[in-house]
Amino acid sequence: MKGTALSKFFAEMLGTMVLVLMGCGSAVIAGADGTTGVGLLGIAFAFGLSVVAMAYAIGHISGCHINPAISIGMVVAGRMKAGEAAYYIVAQIIGGLIGSAILYLIVSHHPGFVMKEWALGANGWGEGYLDQYETIAAFVAEVVFTFIFLLVIFGSTSTKNIHGGFAGIAIGLSLVLIHIVGIKITGVSVNPARSIAPAIFSGGKALSQVWLFIIAPPIGAALSAFVWNLLIEKKES
Amino acid sequence: MKGTALSKFFAEMLGTMVLVLMGCGSAVIAGADGTTGVGLLGIAFAFGLSVVAMAYAIGHISGCHINPAISIGMVVAGRMKAGEAAYYIVAQIIGGLIGSAILYLIVSHHPGFVMKEWALGANGWGEGYLDQYETIAAFVAEVVFTFIFLLVIFGSTSTKNIHGGFAGIAIGLSLVLIHIVGIKITGVSVNPARSIAPAIFSGGKALSQVWLFIIAPPIGAALSAFVWNLLIEKKES
Amino acid sequence: MKGTALSKFFAEMLGTMVLVLMGCGSAVIAGADGTTGVGLLGIAFAFGLSVVAMAYAIGHISGCHINPAISIGMVVAGRMKAGEAAYYIVAQIIGGLIGSAILYLIVSHHPGFVMKEWALGANGWGEGYLDQYETIAAFVAEVVFTFIFLLVIFGSTSTKNIHGGFAGIAIGLSLVLIHIVGIKITGVSVNPARSIAPAIFSGGKALSQVWLFIIAPPIGAALSAFVWNLLIEKKES
Amino acid sequence: MKGTALSKFFAEMLGTMVLVLMGCGSAVIAGADGTTGVGLLGIAFAFGLSVVAMAYAIGHISGCHINPAISIGMVVAGRMKAGEAAYYIVAQIIGGLIGSAILYLIVSHHPGFVMKEWALGANGWGEGYLDQYETIAAFVAEVVFTFIFLLVIFGSTSTKNIHGGFAGIAIGLSLVLIHIVGIKITGVSVNPARSIAPAIFSGGKALSQVWLFIIAPPIGAALSAFVWNLLIEKKES
Repeated sequence: MKGTALSKFFAEMLGTMVLVLMGCGSAVIAGADGTTGVGLLGIAFAFGLSVVAMAYAIGHISGCHINPAISIGMVVAGRMKAGEAAYYIVAQIIGGLIGSAILYLIVSHHPGFVMKEWALGANGWGEGYLDQYETIAAFVAEVVFTFIFLLVIFGSTSTKNIHGGFAGIAIGLSLVLIHIVGIKITGVSVNPARSIAPAIFSGGKALSQVWLFIIAPPIGAALSAFVWNLLIEKKES
Repeated sequence: MKGTALSKFFAEMLGTMVLVLMGCGSAVIAGADGTTGVGLLGIAFAFGLSVVAMAYAIGHISGCHINPAISIGMVVAGRMKAGEAAYYIVAQIIGGLIGSAILYLIVSHHPGFVMKEWALGANGWGEGYLDQYETIAAFVAEVVFTFIFLLVIFGSTSTKNIHGGFAGIAIGLSLVLIHIVGIKITGVSVNPARSIAPAIFSGGKALSQVWLFIIAPPIGAALSAFVWNLLIEKKES
Repeated sequence: MKGTALSKFFAEMLGTMVLVLMGCGSAVIAGADGTTGVGLLGIAFAFGLSVVAMAYAIGHISGCHINPAISIGMVVAGRMKAGEAAYYIVAQIIGGLIGSAILYLIVSHHPGFVMKEWALGANGWGEGYLDQYETIAAFVAEVVFTFIFLLVIFGSTSTKNIHGGFAGIAIGLSLVLIHIVGIKITGVSVNPARSIAPAIFSGGKALSQVWLFIIAPPIGAALSAFVWNLLIEKKES
Repeated sequence: MKGTALSKFFAEMLGTMVLVLMGCGSAVIAGADGTTGVGLLGIAFAFGLSVVAMAYAIGHISGCHINPAISIGMVVAGRMKAGEAAYYIVAQIIGGLIGSAILYLIVSHHPGFVMKEWALGANGWGEGYLDQYETIAAFVAEVVFTFIFLLVIFGSTSTKNIHGGFAGIAIGLSLVLIHIVGIKITGVSVNPARSIAPAIFSGGKALSQVWLFIIAPPIGAALSAFVWNLLIEKKES
C-alpha cells in the first residue's frame, strides 16, 4: 500500500512544508495574543491539525513522519532502516525550508512586517524569548515532550492496536497538547526540521540555539523507543 | 451509494448554504475578538466544523464538495467529469447566496447592525482590510492554502487509503487550520462560492476584489491535482 | 442492540441531564469572557462535547436524542413512532430539570452567586439579553439552526451512510458550530428540554420567552425531515 | 491483546505521568489567562487530549485507566478484579508523582517561578482558591463530574457498543468538557492520582484538602457503576 521511493520523498517534503508553513505561520501571521489573534491555543491547534491533516493525506504513502526525530525513533525501535530514514530526513529538511520560504514571501508583503530576532516562528529560550526559561529547562522539556510524542506514535501505530485508523487523530492531538503546554518554554520543536528552517532564515540567536532542537528531540525519541520495546511491547509478549 | 442528480444538486446547495451561513455568520454574529466574541480561533472552527458536519451528512450523497475549487480540482485530477462539475458549481453558488441571504435576514434584526465596506464576512485584502496584506500576498496565500486543502482531499479520499472514513474529519480540520493561519490575510476563501455571495451583498470593494477569490483557489486546486497525480500517486504505482 | 424501554428512558434522562448541567454550567460557572473564563468558544465546546460524549455512551441504548426536537424530527421523518417519542420527551424534560437543579445546587454555594433575570443559562432575546436581537431574528435563527442540526443527524445516521460510527462526532461538532454562531442571538436552544429547565428555575422573562424555544426547534426539525426525505434521500432512490 | 502484568504497570505509570505533567503543566507553564496564556479552555483541552493521546497509545496494553477512580469503578461494575485494581492504582500514583517531579524540574528553571499555596496545579476550594466555592459545592461537583465521566467510559467501552474504536475520543473529550465546566470550582480532579502528586509537592492547604479528591471521585465512580448496571445495561437485557 505504501508508495514508491520517489512518492515517499515528495510526500515527506510536502508534509513537512505544510507543518512548517502552517504551524509557524499561525504564530507569525495570526499572533499569540488571545484577544486580537488566535492565541497560544490557536497556535497549538495549527501545529497539531497540520499533523492530523497530513496523516490522512499522506499516511498511506510514506507513513507521514514529517519529522526527523520520528524517523530516527523508528530506526531505534527497529521499525525502519537507517538508509531510508536518512532519505526521509533530507526530504523533511527541504520541505521545512520551502515552508519557511513561502511564509516569508507572504508575511513580508504587509505593512506591519519586521524581521525579529527569532523570526518566522523560530524556536529558542533564555533572555528575550517568551518566559525566558533556562537551557536545562529547554533541554529537558524537548526531550520529555518528544518522548511522550513518540509513545503515542509507537502505541497508536502498533500492529497489535486494532484501532490503527485513529492514529492520525491521536498523534496530531498529542502535538496540540504538547504545544499547549510548552510554547512558553521553547516555542516547542520536538522536530529538528521544524526548527532548522526558521533558524536559517532568522540567523542570529535562533541559529546559534538550533543545536538544542537538533539534539534533544532525537534523544527523546530514542529513549521512547527503548522504553516502548523494553517495558511496554516486548517482542516475546 | 451516491444519490440521484437532483439529490446531489440539493445536497451541494444545502451544504454550501451551511458553510457560508455558519462560517461567515461566526465572524458577523459572534465576532473576531477573543475576549468578547469567539475570536479568530472560533471563526476558524466554524468554517472547518461546517465541513466536518456536512461531510458526514451529505458525503454519501454528493461527495460534499460545497466548493467550486474542489469540483474543478476533481476534474483536473480525472476523478469527475466537467459537465457534472459545472452542475455542482451552480448548486454551490446558489447555496452560498441563500446562506448570505439568511445571514443578512438574521443579523439585520439587531440594534448594533451596520452594513460595513466588507459585509457579511466578505473576503478582501489591502488598505482597510484586517492586516492590510498586499495583492501578491493575498494571491499567493489563496493559491497555497487551496493547494494544501486539496492535497488533504486527494489523499484522504484516495481509493488506496484504507482509512477513508476519517476523510471528513481530516478535511474539515484542515480547513480549521487554514483559517487559523490565514484569516488576517484575506479572511480566507479557498472557495469561490464562499466569496461570491457576501461580495454580491456587500458590493463596493468586496465585489471589486472578488476576482481574486474566483481565480486563485481553482489555480491552487489544479496545481494540487497535478502534483498529486504526478508525484504522489502515479497511476502506475 | 438497543436497550429495553426502561433503559432507554434512563439513558435519555441522564443524557439530557448531562447536556443541561454541563452546557449551561459552562456559561454559569466558567463564564463567557474569553480572558478570565472559557469564552463563547468554550461554552460552544461544552454543549457540543456533551453530545459527543453521550452519543458514544448511550447511543447504542436509546440513540441519544436527548432533545425533543430530534425525537419529533424522527417521527416526522418516519424513523420513530409518535408514542415512543412522547415517552422519550418526558425523560428528556425530567433530565433537563435534574441538570438545572444540580447546577443550582453547585453554583449557589460560592460567594459571587446572584440569581439573574435569565439564570442558569436560560435562553432569551431582546432588551437585556446579550446582543438584543429582535424576536423575528431569534425565531428564524432557532428554526434554521435546528434545520441544519437535523440535516447532520439524518445524513450521518442514514442506513445508506457507511461511516455511521462517525455520527456522534459529526452531530456533536455541529452543535459546537451552531453555538459558535448563535450564542449572541438566543444563547442557542435548538432543544426545548435544554430551555424549559432553566426557564422554570429562572421565572420572569426567561419563562415568558420559553414558548419560542418550545415551538421553533420542532418546526426546524420537521422542515429538515421533509427536505431530507423529499430532496436528498427519496425512498425510491 | 492485553499486555503482561509488568507492561500494564508501566503503561499505567507512564500514562498517569503524561496526564499530570501535561494537564497540570498547561496551567502552571502556559497560564489560565485567555489573552496571554492558553486560558481555561486551553487547560481543559490539555487534560482531555492527554487522555485521547494515551488511550490510543496504551489502551491496547492496559485499558488506559490512568485514574484510580476508574479502576475502582471497574471493580464495582464487575469488570475488573480488586487485586489488579490495587496494582493499577500503585502504578498510577507513582506515575503522577513522576509527572509532578518533571513539571517542578522544568518550571523551577525560569525567572518568574514562585511556589504558591496551591502549586503545580494542585486542586482545592474555598478561600483563596479561584472562585472560592464552598466545601459542599466542591464535593458535589467532584462526585457528579466523576459520575458523568464513568458513564461515558462504561457506555463507550461496552461490549454491546459496536463503535468501541471511538471510546478514546469520547472519553478524552468528556474530560475536556468536565474541565471547561469545573475548573473554577476545584480545578477539577475526578482522579485521586492527579490530585495526590501536586498536593504532596505543595504541602499546606493543598495537602490538607487532598482528602476530598481521594474520597469524592471513587464515590462518583461507584454510583455510576451501580446506575449503569442497574438502569442502563442490565445483565439480562
